[in-house]
Amino acid sequence: MIFFGKARSANKVQHLISLCRALLSERGEVSGGRLASEVIAAYQSLGAQAVQDFFDRLVTEFSPDPGAVQAAAKAYLEKPSEGHLAQLQAAADPPRQELFRRWNMAPGGIGVLIQMRRTLLGTLKAHPERVHLDSDLLHLFRSWFNRGFLILRRIDWGTPAVILERLIEYEAVHQIQGWRDLRRRLEADRRCYAFFHPALPDEPLIFIEAALTRGMTSDVKPLIDPQSPVADPGAADTAMFYSITNCQEGLRGVSFGNSLIKQVVEDLGREFRRLRTFATLSPIPGFRVWLVATDPQWDSLDPASASQAKRRELTALCARYLLQAKREKEPLDAVERFHLANGASLERVNWMADPSPAGVKRSFGFMTNYVYRLDDVEKNHEAYAREYRVVASRGIERLAAR
Amino acid sequence: MIFFGKARSANKVQHLISLCRALLSERGEVSGGRLASEVIAAYQSLGAQAVQDFFDRLVTEFSPDPGAVQAAAKAYLEKPSEGHLAQLQAAADPPRQELFRRWNMAPGGIGVLIQMRRTLLGTLKAHPERVHLDSDLLHLFRSWFNRGFLILRRIDWGTPAVILERLIEYEAVHQIQGWRDLRRRLEADRRCYAFFHPALPDEPLIFIEAALTRGMTSDVKPLIDPQSPVADPGAADTAMFYSITNCQEGLRGVSFGNSLIKQVVEDLGREFRRLRTFATLSPIPGFRVWLVATDPQWDSLDPASASQAKRRELTALCARYLLQAKREKEPLDAVERFHLANGASLERVNWMADPSPAGVKRSFGFMTNYVYRLDDVEKNHEAYAREYRVVASRGIERLAAR
Amino acid sequence: MIFFGKARSANKVQHLISLCRALLSERGEVSGGRLASEVIAAYQSLGAQAVQDFFDRLVTEFSPDPGAVQAAAKAYLEKPSEGHLAQLQAAADPPRQELFRRWNMAPGGIGVLIQMRRTLLGTLKAHPERVHLDSDLLHLFRSWFNRGFLILRRIDWGTPAVILERLIEYEAVHQIQGWRDLRRRLEADRRCYAFFHPALPDEPLIFIEAALTRGMTSDVKPLIDPQSPVADPGAADTAMFYSITNCQEGLRGVSFGNSLIKQVVEDLGREFRRLRTFATLSPIPGFRVWLVATDPQWDSLDPASASQAKRRELTALCARYLLQAKREKEPLDAVERFHLANGASLERVNWMADPSPAGVKRSFGFMTNYVYRLDDVEKNHEAYAREYRVVASRGIERLAAR
Amino acid sequence: MIFFGKARSANKVQHLISLCRALLSERGEVSGGRLASEVIAAYQSLGAQAVQDFFDRLVTEFSPDPGAVQAAAKAYLEKPSEGHLAQLQAAADPPRQELFRRWNMAPGGIGVLIQMRRTLLGTLKAHPERVHLDSDLLHLFRSWFNRGFLILRRIDWGTPAVILERLIEYEAVHQIQGWRDLRRRLEADRRCYAFFHPALPDEPLIFIEAALTRGMTSDVKPLIDPQSPVADPGAADTAMFYSITNCQEGLRGVSFGNSLIKQVVEDLGREFRRLRTFATLSPIPGFRVWLVATDPQWDSLDPASASQAKRRELTALCARYLLQAKREKEPLDAVERFHLANGASLERVNWMADPSPAGVKRSFGFMTNYVYRLDDVEKNHEAYAREYRVVASRGIERLAAR
Repeated sequence: MIFFGKARSANKVQHLISLCRALLSERGEVSGGRLASEVIAAYQSLGAQAVQDFFDRLVTEFSPDPGAVQAAAKAYLEKPSEGHLAQLQAAADPPRQELFRRWNMAPGGIGVLIQMRRTLLGTLKAHPERVHLDSDLLHLFRSWFNRGFLILRRIDWGTPAVILERLIEYEAVHQIQGWRDLRRRLEADRRCYAFFHPALPDEPLIFIEAALTRGMTSDVKPLIDPQSPVADPGAADTAMFYSITNCQEGLRGVSFGNSLIKQVVEDLGREFRRLRTFATLSPIPGFRVWLVATDPQWDSLDPASASQAKRRELTALCARYLLQAKREKEPLDAVERFHLANGASLERVNWMADPSPAGVKRSFGFMTNYVYRLDDVEKNHEAYAREYRVVASRGIERLAAR
Repeated sequence: MIFFGKARSANKVQHLISLCRALLSERGEVSGGRLASEVIAAYQSLGAQAVQDFFDRLVTEFSPDPGAVQAAAKAYLEKPSEGHLAQLQAAADPPRQELFRRWNMAPGGIGVLIQMRRTLLGTLKAHPERVHLDSDLLHLFRSWFNRGFLILRRIDWGTPAVILERLIEYEAVHQIQGWRDLRRRLEADRRCYAFFHPALPDEPLIFIEAALTRGMTSDVKPLIDPQSPVADPGAADTAMFYSITNCQEGLRGVSFGNSLIKQVVEDLGREFRRLRTFATLSPIPGFRVWLVATDPQWDSLDPASASQAKRRELTALCARYLLQAKREKEPLDAVERFHLANGASLERVNWMADPSPAGVKRSFGFMTNYVYRLDDVEKNHEAYAREYRVVASRGIERLAAR
Repeated sequence: MIFFGKARSANKVQHLISLCRALLSERGEVSGGRLASEVIAAYQSLGAQAVQDFFDRLVTEFSPDPGAVQAAAKAYLEKPSEGHLAQLQAAADPPRQELFRRWNMAPGGIGVLIQMRRTLLGTLKAHPERVHLDSDLLHLFRSWFNRGFLILRRIDWGTPAVILERLIEYEAVHQIQGWRDLRRRLEADRRCYAFFHPALPDEPLIFIEAALTRGMTSDVKPLIDPQSPVADPGAADTAMFYSITNCQEGLRGVSFGNSLIKQVVEDLGREFRRLRTFATLSPIPGFRVWLVATDPQWDSLDPASASQAKRRELTALCARYLLQAKREKEPLDAVERFHLANGASLERVNWMADPSPAGVKRSFGFMTNYVYRLDDVEKNHEAYAREYRVVASRGIERLAAR
Repeated sequence: MIFFGKARSANKVQHLISLCRALLSERGEVSGGRLASEVIAAYQSLGAQAVQDFFDRLVTEFSPDPGAVQAAAKAYLEKPSEGHLAQLQAAADPPRQELFRRWNMAPGGIGVLIQMRRTLLGTLKAHPERVHLDSDLLHLFRSWFNRGFLILRRIDWGTPAVILERLIEYEAVHQIQGWRDLRRRLEADRRCYAFFHPALPDEPLIFIEAALTRGMTSDVKPLIDPQSPVADPGAADTAMFYSITNCQEGLRGVSFGNSLIKQVVEDLGREFRRLRTFATLSPIPGFRVWLVATDPQWDSLDPASASQAKRRELTALCARYLLQAKREKEPLDAVERFHLANGASLERVNWMADPSPAGVKRSFGFMTNYVYRLDDVEKNHEAYAREYRVVASRGIERLAAR
């Protein structure tokens, strides 16, 4: 019985491989749409093990032919002409790239490819040989999800439920507790924007949540409290970005966040002429691990009952972590790297900004404000890109210097 | 003065090249949108000669680095590992591909790239070294204008004028004589469909015009006569495709026609359940040239005054041309190759179907009907793909056998 | 303090009345939009008591002037010319109708009028003199919410949340238990349609819920169970309408239900060609009251534990109620009147179709199937309109005859 | 033969009348949609004479019943109660109003009613008894085409051709010479807006054309010249309204112009913050007639060759015409009445602003600028509404005083 199952599964993989070959052949050009649909249906009918087998065969059978690459490499070395270069490129080009392009001829093809890569990513550790298969998919996605093709849409209570449901599902930074919570996050004093791709109209790729406030917020609670009163957006002078979420694990490595923030800052600035400050209230994911590794006694600290002195000490250490803890030349903190590379500056460290158990566990409840000043974004970015300079406020620098 | 102009022009090209380098650098990731806009503006400000210079520099400065390719080729030949293969691919990958991807980060980037390739195509004869630059653009366009991203839209009198205007401009097979003529072609007994790309919402990529008729038409006049009475589409049993036009010269080599015909045949079949026949009334662009080359005396024939005997003889020769005149193994006639490769069959040869001077000059006024039978399309296509078999009706075979 | 409050409230009413007069004056024609906005804002700022005062003044001050009506009536009686008739009509026409028409010049005016009538309806018992004020609003609404202006929209999971939220709020027949329940009611084997007015794009006026099933359902549970498996809609032969809800209390008396059912039956018939039966599963709101009034001993019956004999007896009584219990010449049951007047026929009586406490309390758990047969709808309707004939199946007639 | 034709025509009218009665009956409530469609089809099949007969029967058979009105009038005079008033209103209400409301239950009903009134208007002179039938239609249209239901849409080159075609057809002030001329009027330095009703999405009700200019234009030529260069709209300080056209003759008496101008002034002011002046360049339709009536010798004047003195004299007379020529208390000039009632002021008189033969024939080539100053509109309007005050610039007053 089990044996039979394996045999059927092997048959299914074999069938799928044959369809893939047909799709890649010349016949694929005319019957592309139909063949691609069959390929996709065949792939989707595979069990978990069969998917693994299919990945293996994509690696072994749809990679460049080593013999052909060697021949082309030799020819090029003998005579490095344009013609030989073209032959070398063609020989080195993995057939599966073209294969995946043709999958996309079927309706929904692109969604299936994203799901497939998501599955693939989970197997890379155990199967390092699949890293090139992964690169091929990533290469395609970078080309297809190019900024020029993306559509920025505002998300509000008039957005289709099918999309809102995804937001509830995907939000990773501050979980959305059902429809009521979501509704609060879409009220008049909030803004939510997402990037979409035209071929995936119901699938947000990334979304950002902002609150329109008076002054820069140092405490996450009012931002995510479903019961908080709705403020007058016309009176706001600050846009607080309190959450940014990548939705498609299968698109890991295609970066959207930077474009999204820049676009939203521009749009909000146009809509609300009184907005002066665009700031985040961001987690500090690496602080606790770093601190405890430095000095294990901190592990037992409960910030809720910490003394004033401890609090001051810890705040200085947090500033030091942000300014001085490095991974090679870059800051150790991943969120910090993201915002600095986008051109933000480090503005403020906030004690007990996220007093939830998760917040305490992550960083003793600390959160940071990064600020996007339109006039400085480019300059900051370049300083960071050139020399990994961390642009920070005087306050933080003083704290770290204590 | 001229010298000064050249200097300014050289400066402009140099400035554009610098912008391109910046866009390709890491800085480009953050400031991509703005830089890409500058690149595009700089490109669009170039004069004709400067564009030529820019093409040259794209060839010389944004091609793969021969030294790097050679080193990677050597490393691969010594040890053909996956890692070395990846290095070789990276070295052989032309930087300008990534450059063009980043152009697209600016609004309108893709349209400018299409225009640029259009210009480039016109220079290839004189500059064969630019063929690889052209391949890089084509490669990108094939990936971006993948069927999965295209949108089929019906064109009718409710379509925005900005799109209709393009149809008037682009129609190549049977010129549209202004808005009145166009309106007739969009009446109830006609259908027009076009493919669009979401990033170019006002630019048709290809469009097809069909007339809903009773019986297969053998004469193009009633189809393109703006004064012809509007028939009842519900009574039609045949859809006559009388024109199919590729709109974007800059997308030459990205094939849309086959997908378009198949999709339209399916959609029409669903909308009008009484439709039995899907046929074209197509020109025979190569007939006259071929015939006159075979026997120069035909050149002086005026079909309007030809005798019955001449007419019979010419018809047989036309059938023979379609069935027997070859370019290697394929039919000599380009339109024939297109429809046969799509799975159509050769149905009928029509005497004086296009009596216009252009029609007579092209093919003594002959036109062909190709027929798309849904059940046979795949079979025909494969017969053609495998062995270039020309599937033709008995009538045509008999004519050719005379 | 209270006195002061009253004074302010009286001022507010007085101010609103002045604005209404200005809006009705010639000045209102030019500054209509702005004045109407002020009127609406003033109305919305009124407290509960002030609204009552405002209603009183609409009755006393914006009704036809009795003196003018009398004069016109006399003139007409003296000489019943067309001119005198026109004068009489003008004099008898209540100024508040024109006033309300002008309220609508402001954005959102129509929504406020609907809310106002909703409030008014709740006061009619205590204020019978306001019945003419109510008639004026109803007259306007009948003209404005004419079928020709309504838009039928399918409601599904791609519908904006702002509309779906209203469905959850409004559904009266079988309460929707939150978003999860709603989502089930919008799956592939369900259909939901609503009428909208273009000036109120987010406000459903009426909606109907249907399940696509095999065979006519006699039990409401599977239809409203959020956990029920999703069936294949392509295999369905029956559309079960299990809920129809009027959303706008303020539009009471404007009937939408009949148009909605007819349109949905047509649309579903076109989409699913295998659908044969269009039926409801409807409550019998008046059965228990009628039965207990006839024979009080029934009041203590628990249908869940009833004997076979009791069950049979009760079923026969239910059939008799539907066929024989009358209010003058019409059936006593309101739901029955609605469906028969629409042209449906009475098909089946279902024991314990709604075993919920509410269902048992209403009608001992009985529900009826009414059937809409496209060919009979008009005939049935006319039979009902002419002579209140109740078209019923043989089965029900036999039951009632026992 | 003719007799037979008449008989058939009479039959058709009789059949239509029967359908109208059925539609008005209770049966009409359920089968309204279908019956209304039949009514409309029957109406549309009538020949010209039959339409006249139908109008007659609408007058005689669908007017209020004089007996019923008399009875109700008597009852009211005896006891002027609310109940008797309601009866009187009901008796005086013409049944054809409800009939027309029900026509609208069919798709396209409203369009047919508008066409019908258009036909009717042409017969009123010969048939004064139909004036009340006309009033009933106008009353309905005023209610249905209430500002709150209208949609303002910008018209540009992205507008569907079906709508643009109507603009070409309808433009009355400065004829549009085909698609090329239209395209010029929709370029970047122009704006065109129209009101639509949701039930007639392809039918503009009224449209206005504006040019964005530097300074107030005194010459119509550059505004309507298809060859004029396109200016930079960002540099404009003035919006010149050079044409406003009512499209639907059948809606005569429903005024849209005032709302349209006010809305467009607001929208343009928001879009272009540098706009200071909103002005018209308007014809003076009554000037020549008035002047020649005053002094017949002017009739022979050719302004193209007029002396400086004549020109000065004529200009002063034109100012006098605008300020002093009256029809009762209002200005004699219809265009002047329209703009003053809207709150504009009379700014300038322009010699040879429209040198076309039509312009010379109408007003010796003179045109006026009316100016809409947002701050003064209401004040001006009230001054006009109260006392027909003509608000004019000093310059014009001085001219008139000469």
